[in-house]
Amino acid sequence: MYQDTVDFIRETFQEKEKFIPLHEPLFIGNERKYVLDAIDSTFVSSVGEYVNRFEEMMCQITGAKYAIALVNGTNAIHLSLLLAGVKPGDEVLTQSLTFVATANAISYCNATPHFVDVDKETLGLSPSLLKKYLEKIAVIKNGVCYNKTTNKKIGACVPMHTFGLPLYIDELVAVCNEYHIPVVEDAAESIGSSFKGKHTGTFGLIGTFSFNGNKTITCGGGGAIVTNDESLAKKAKHLTTQAKIPHKWEYKHDAIGYNYRMPNLNAAMACAQLEQLNSYVEDKRVLSDLYFDFYKNNSEIELIREVSEAHANYWLNAVLLKDKTQRDEFLEYTNAKGVMTRPIWGLMNKLEMFKDCPKSDLTNAKYLEERVVNIPSSVRLK
Amino acid sequence: MYQDTVDFIRETFQEKEKFIPLHEPLFIGNERKYVLDAIDSTFVSSVGEYVNRFEEMMCQITGAKYAIALVNGTNAIHLSLLLAGVKPGDEVLTQSLTFVATANAISYCNATPHFVDVDKETLGLSPSLLKKYLEKIAVIKNGVCYNKTTNKKIGACVPMHTFGLPLYIDELVAVCNEYHIPVVEDAAESIGSSFKGKHTGTFGLIGTFSFNGNKTITCGGGGAIVTNDESLAKKAKHLTTQAKIPHKWEYKHDAIGYNYRMPNLNAAMACAQLEQLNSYVEDKRVLSDLYFDFYKNNSEIELIREVSEAHANYWLNAVLLKDKTQRDEFLEYTNAKGVMTRPIWGLMNKLEMFKDCPKSDLTNAKYLEERVVNIPSSVRLK
Repeated sequence: MYQDTVDFIRETFQEKEKFIPLHEPLFIGNERKYVLDAIDSTFVSSVGEYVNRFEEMMCQITGAKYAIALVNGTNAIHLSLLLAGVKPGDEVLTQSLTFVATANAISYCNATPHFVDVDKETLGLSPSLLKKYLEKIAVIKNGVCYNKTTNKKIGACVPMHTFGLPLYIDELVAVCNEYHIPVVEDAAESIGSSFKGKHTGTFGLIGTFSFNGNKTITCGGGGAIVTNDESLAKKAKHLTTQAKIPHKWEYKHDAIGYNYRMPNLNAAMACAQLEQLNSYVEDKRVLSDLYFDFYKNNSEIELIREVSEAHANYWLNAVLLKDKTQRDEFLEYTNAKGVMTRPIWGLMNKLEMFKDCPKSDLTNAKYLEERVVNIPSSVRLK
Repeated sequence: MYQDTVDFIRETFQEKEKFIPLHEPLFIGNERKYVLDAIDSTFVSSVGEYVNRFEEMMCQITGAKYAIALVNGTNAIHLSLLLAGVKPGDEVLTQSLTFVATANAISYCNATPHFVDVDKETLGLSPSLLKKYLEKIAVIKNGVCYNKTTNKKIGACVPMHTFGLPLYIDELVAVCNEYHIPVVEDAAESIGSSFKGKHTGTFGLIGTFSFNGNKTITCGGGGAIVTNDESLAKKAKHLTTQAKIPHKWEYKHDAIGYNYRMPNLNAAMACAQLEQLNSYVEDKRVLSDLYFDFYKNNSEIELIREVSEAHANYWLNAVLLKDKTQRDEFLEYTNAKGVMTRPIWGLMNKLEMFKDCPKSDLTNAKYLEERVVNIPSSVRLK
């Protein structure tokens, strides 16, 4: 029944026999050159020209005023929550349907994830459902938002642009602004994605990115934050370098700091990859169109596409199956045939460590959890 | 007055004019080759052959049964404390005279650093002073050690092998064992250093290493832990990969996890650097001998050397000045002449965020804080 999918994917990736992964990195630009150059410079650690260049490129690409290179995307969320003022005991709103790193990073702040529902069409946090939910559970005292039930401060909201599909981020930020909740945008999967012409990660107070091995572009391990707030950008650099106060030789530190800066070796690769971002995203959008055409007359399988006014990087293409039984059959069949497919994440509120966290109605998240599957989405330029 | 030091260092490093740094990395082996190979393999992220090879090499070099490659040394301490069972609210014994990362990592566990004194000759945590201190403040209930004054559990002890000089680690572990306190050995600076023929980092429950840019060997950013405990090693790999339970496609996570694994790109460089470790340490020991000969008849300046039965990597050579005034003059003079020197760290208990932490008498740490200065120590093989 799913043989046509297998055939189409093998045809599309021009690979008749071998295993086809979900996403593999592609190094066809200046990766080798820049990495060797970093080694020759002996500046391989967190100070170096490629780190500076990477940060400038991130500003150019996203349109943000400031970018800070970090060691990975998980730490980028953790740092951003600290910068947003999240304190131990706070609650932080986020999607129940997300990768576990989002919720883990909230836990690093000794804050509690508070799970809310997503929109079915974006797979991202729903502004309208959030608004209704906050009307019910939130109260504002002295300009600070509290959960009426738990009496805890709602310290931040972390929406996530799932698989690079932009969510309704402008409306989401508007709702959060109304409730004085700072937005940390998890754009880990959405480098190259924009909404209404503005890059994801630049709508909220801070945006976070990941350059892990499975992402659209990668530098082995890496992350970044972007912001338009100069004081936050300065504080970010300070906290991620063990909070050391500059001095010609003395060691003074004025806060609990972290070792979160991206090494120059990795930044060299990141610069080479960013140079190719546009062509990669173009290629991925062509692939999504091919999948769309292939599935458009299929009554069982639907390709998930960007919403109006969104421009997705289509990091990972995703299909919607009819139900969990069909989803499982699809997964079993395609993987058995050497074509890698993978279900969307399980809901966060089902995990042992988050099972007692507060949550809204999660109807859409539950619906999607049982039906969404990722299909091979590597860049095909070679 | 310190012109002879400047002259000697310029002579020793065969550098007449240019700035001489404290420590610069040296890439004269297979660094370029292995890094390109990692790029060509497309496995640049946390799964890859160089990560495996690096872990095997760390086992061979240290003699530990298990090694786990991590993103940096700070995270290595954090992870080790979690593995050792440190819980929020615990106290963790460590040196007041250490780099801030040690104390920060304790804070990440929501535990409180409890500062103790060092031995003057090793610059590391003093077994004899610790023993006397614990006799006064500790009580054991049901096999668990508590601070009598605060009623908090003493969850671990983190001694640090300062500048690669081994401390009296066997005695230190014996004292901690007597009090049922697990030892996490901070060997960040001591790769290649041993005590009584055994590699530093292998005396306690877990040992931690750093491969930051300024270390004896570097991979841009990187760290590792070593242990002989199989269950801890397994748990370490689990927690550092977001605590994901292995499954052919499902996402299940059973604990708060972290993104702490070393990327294969960095591991490739680490393997090439580890291949050269022995020759680097040999070269550094020759340099220390040269400094020793130079300073041996100097009544004002004394080179700090390894104690009997210790074999130091002499990561950073250190001299002891007569007092703070002389130290400041030495720092001013040498740095003005383009020869980089740097004082040892300020005491942790003086920093704003740690000023209310419990502490023992710190006479030795205070003495050393005012007098110890690092001098240029790069590997000179070229």
